[in-house]
Amino acid sequence: MVEIRKPIPIQVAVNKVMNYSRLGNLEKVSLDDCDDRRLAEPIIAKHPIPPFTKSPYDGFALRSADTEQASLHNPVEFEVVEHIGAGIVPTKRVRKGQATRIMTGAQIPEGADCVAMFEICQSYERNGKNYMAIKRTMDKGQNIINKGSEVEMDDILIKAGTYINPGVKALLATFGYSEVTVAKKPVIGVIATGTELLDINEELQPGKIRNSNAYMIASQIKRAGGQVIYFGKLEDEFASSYDTIKNALHKVDMLITTGGVSVGDFDLMPQIYDKLGANVLFNKVAMRPGSVTTVAVREEQLLFGLSGNPSACYVGFELFVRPIIQRLQYSNKPFLKRIDAVLLEDFPKPNPFTRFVRSYLVYENGKVGVRLAGMDKSNVVTSLAYSSGLMVLPGGTRGYKSGAPIEVLLLNEQEGQKDF
Amino acid sequence: MVEIRKPIPIQVAVNKVMNYSRLGNLEKVSLDDCDDRRLAEPIIAKHPIPPFTKSPYDGFALRSADTEQASLHNPVEFEVVEHIGAGIVPTKRVRKGQATRIMTGAQIPEGADCVAMFEICQSYERNGKNYMAIKRTMDKGQNIINKGSEVEMDDILIKAGTYINPGVKALLATFGYSEVTVAKKPVIGVIATGTELLDINEELQPGKIRNSNAYMIASQIKRAGGQVIYFGKLEDEFASSYDTIKNALHKVDMLITTGGVSVGDFDLMPQIYDKLGANVLFNKVAMRPGSVTTVAVREEQLLFGLSGNPSACYVGFELFVRPIIQRLQYSNKPFLKRIDAVLLEDFPKPNPFTRFVRSYLVYENGKVGVRLAGMDKSNVVTSLAYSSGLMVLPGGTRGYKSGAPIEVLLLNEQEGQKDF
Repeated sequence: MVEIRKPIPIQVAVNKVMNYSRLGNLEKVSLDDCDDRRLAEPIIAKHPIPPFTKSPYDGFALRSADTEQASLHNPVEFEVVEHIGAGIVPTKRVRKGQATRIMTGAQIPEGADCVAMFEICQSYERNGKNYMAIKRTMDKGQNIINKGSEVEMDDILIKAGTYINPGVKALLATFGYSEVTVAKKPVIGVIATGTELLDINEELQPGKIRNSNAYMIASQIKRAGGQVIYFGKLEDEFASSYDTIKNALHKVDMLITTGGVSVGDFDLMPQIYDKLGANVLFNKVAMRPGSVTTVAVREEQLLFGLSGNPSACYVGFELFVRPIIQRLQYSNKPFLKRIDAVLLEDFPKPNPFTRFVRSYLVYENGKVGVRLAGMDKSNVVTSLAYSSGLMVLPGGTRGYKSGAPIEVLLLNEQEGQKDF
Repeated sequence: MVEIRKPIPIQVAVNKVMNYSRLGNLEKVSLDDCDDRRLAEPIIAKHPIPPFTKSPYDGFALRSADTEQASLHNPVEFEVVEHIGAGIVPTKRVRKGQATRIMTGAQIPEGADCVAMFEICQSYERNGKNYMAIKRTMDKGQNIINKGSEVEMDDILIKAGTYINPGVKALLATFGYSEVTVAKKPVIGVIATGTELLDINEELQPGKIRNSNAYMIASQIKRAGGQVIYFGKLEDEFASSYDTIKNALHKVDMLITTGGVSVGDFDLMPQIYDKLGANVLFNKVAMRPGSVTTVAVREEQLLFGLSGNPSACYVGFELFVRPIIQRLQYSNKPFLKRIDAVLLEDFPKPNPFTRFVRSYLVYENGKVGVRLAGMDKSNVVTSLAYSSGLMVLPGGTRGYKSGAPIEVLLLNEQEGQKDF
């Protein structure tokens, strides 16, 4: 007897899972260690930028009014009263006929209202004093960057949930965030099920294959921002599987199993959910691959039952687990970024259900094309290595022709999108 | 006196640096820890995939010839002689009139040459024996995945230099790579120079700003695949700066300094290179920002003198340092991926030199557009946080209009390109 399950639409399945999304607990990490995390608080300007009025060039700070008479044939002379590098505070007010030699980034001395670049000035000494002359007029404010002209104090610069890249890190440093508030990485358990699985360091045996899904998912978890506890692989044996899974639940925020969710004779996960008292949100989704993807909840804890098929497992993770991990990290755009592209080859397979096809993007002449990452046999694992996206091929068609407009979910984009 | 430097074309500068590129030393890391590294050896199929002939479905394995007489009105009966799940090796040869109940992924028993899916078979018991009947003919090879049909033994599956993503990791697991050969992460020293710099945990002081470049570069180094030693910040004072830099060189594979490379009165790096006996490859590049970017070599060790200006520093790293780090990791595509896109807003600045403008991509209707990531004042650090690309605006123009075709360097792409 094969159990008949009714598939639910993907969007409905996604919503059912996201009902259990929440924001993660906070921790502080040092600025050195914040790369690749996400901000759990906005970055707020703790002071204006620049924090003082400064010079963008090497030159002389002076009063523009004093250059009024300057011309090619009438150089105007200034006495150079001070010489300041960046980081040195000017001590002398610039008065009529005076100038301060100033370096890029240094603070403009009081009295001065412009900076004449070196290239237009002539410097010389006379009687042990420094002078410079200029042959053109300067405007008030010329070559001056005013305090606060780039950022005002208390401006919200970067929103919570933003991925910390080198530019974000520079801003954190600028405002003296020696520690950064981020969400704790969720701890995600991984268990592979299936009597056919060998450990990676075991010799190949007849009828068996090595467990690759657990390692793949571990990598997906890390990419999404979680941390992994791997509980090993389980034979298709109920009592020991149940015990391992039940114990694992105490040690993790959520648990991913691979395999055992279908309706085969040795698929034990349905019974295990039952005995755990977990509420199965769905066990069949109108999609390929991964239609048997199952998600259950037990005391607010999510149990993801992904397919044992590598591609289905991969897709199930990206569609259902990744958004939960992203949201925990305060992302307001927890879903994979979805863009429009043009299909660059025929995809002749009839498509009763929406299909997610491993693919990679091709940029040409300002257009985005998309190609299949290898044959699409759902048990070919090689193509996953080359995938940068998943084409979304809506169901109810007899295939797609080269040139068709297609949506693609981007797998490597740190910025996601708000809705699935 | 301002020293006049002659700018060299960017491509020439890049080539001068890449002359010193080499492959990194090797190390082995556990499969668990190989994420985000690059393979230093290709992945070779250590066995065929699948390693044995298997069933893609739950069903019955049998001899197709035995179904020859089957039809809607003439069900053909088979005795079910064995029941095997995935990972269980069949022990019985399937003979005339016999079938083996088989689960997805299990090995096809000898004698059988096709699999009839459960859905088309009727199972029943009689006198304590299991039978099934089928009402249609089957073809030889139907629903059989042959050994080696996906991958043959000794196939080179993934090239050295490939970034290890979840799909690559799955393949490594499949072939039992419990350890993975990668290049050792190059150790890259970072020193910030400038009397104006405060540590991130210091209170703001008049005329000073916090050191943000060192943190930004540390993040860029990690993103590119290196590891960082930060030697702190230096005042613009020759003797102590020289000592710190000279000592740092003993502890790193290469050294990055920020600031001090221009021709200002307190720019000490040119003298320091001189005293170190370093050969300056160039100290002026025909580009904006970052024209003062300097690269020197001392006993095969690269010294990158990046600008103190945050944007110039950022660009200098991505153009000159990143490719060296990528190549150390065996990448054959060490340069930032460059794509065509359409400019989505005016860029009215005249462009005497090629300009790299912080920007982000916009995907719309299958087209790639590109927008400025904030104002392009080269000392505005906020825009770096939102940049996913650098527009390349060739020099010698009076600006660019919205709609212009533009090249963009992608900052977050793991796959780069062969040439700059």
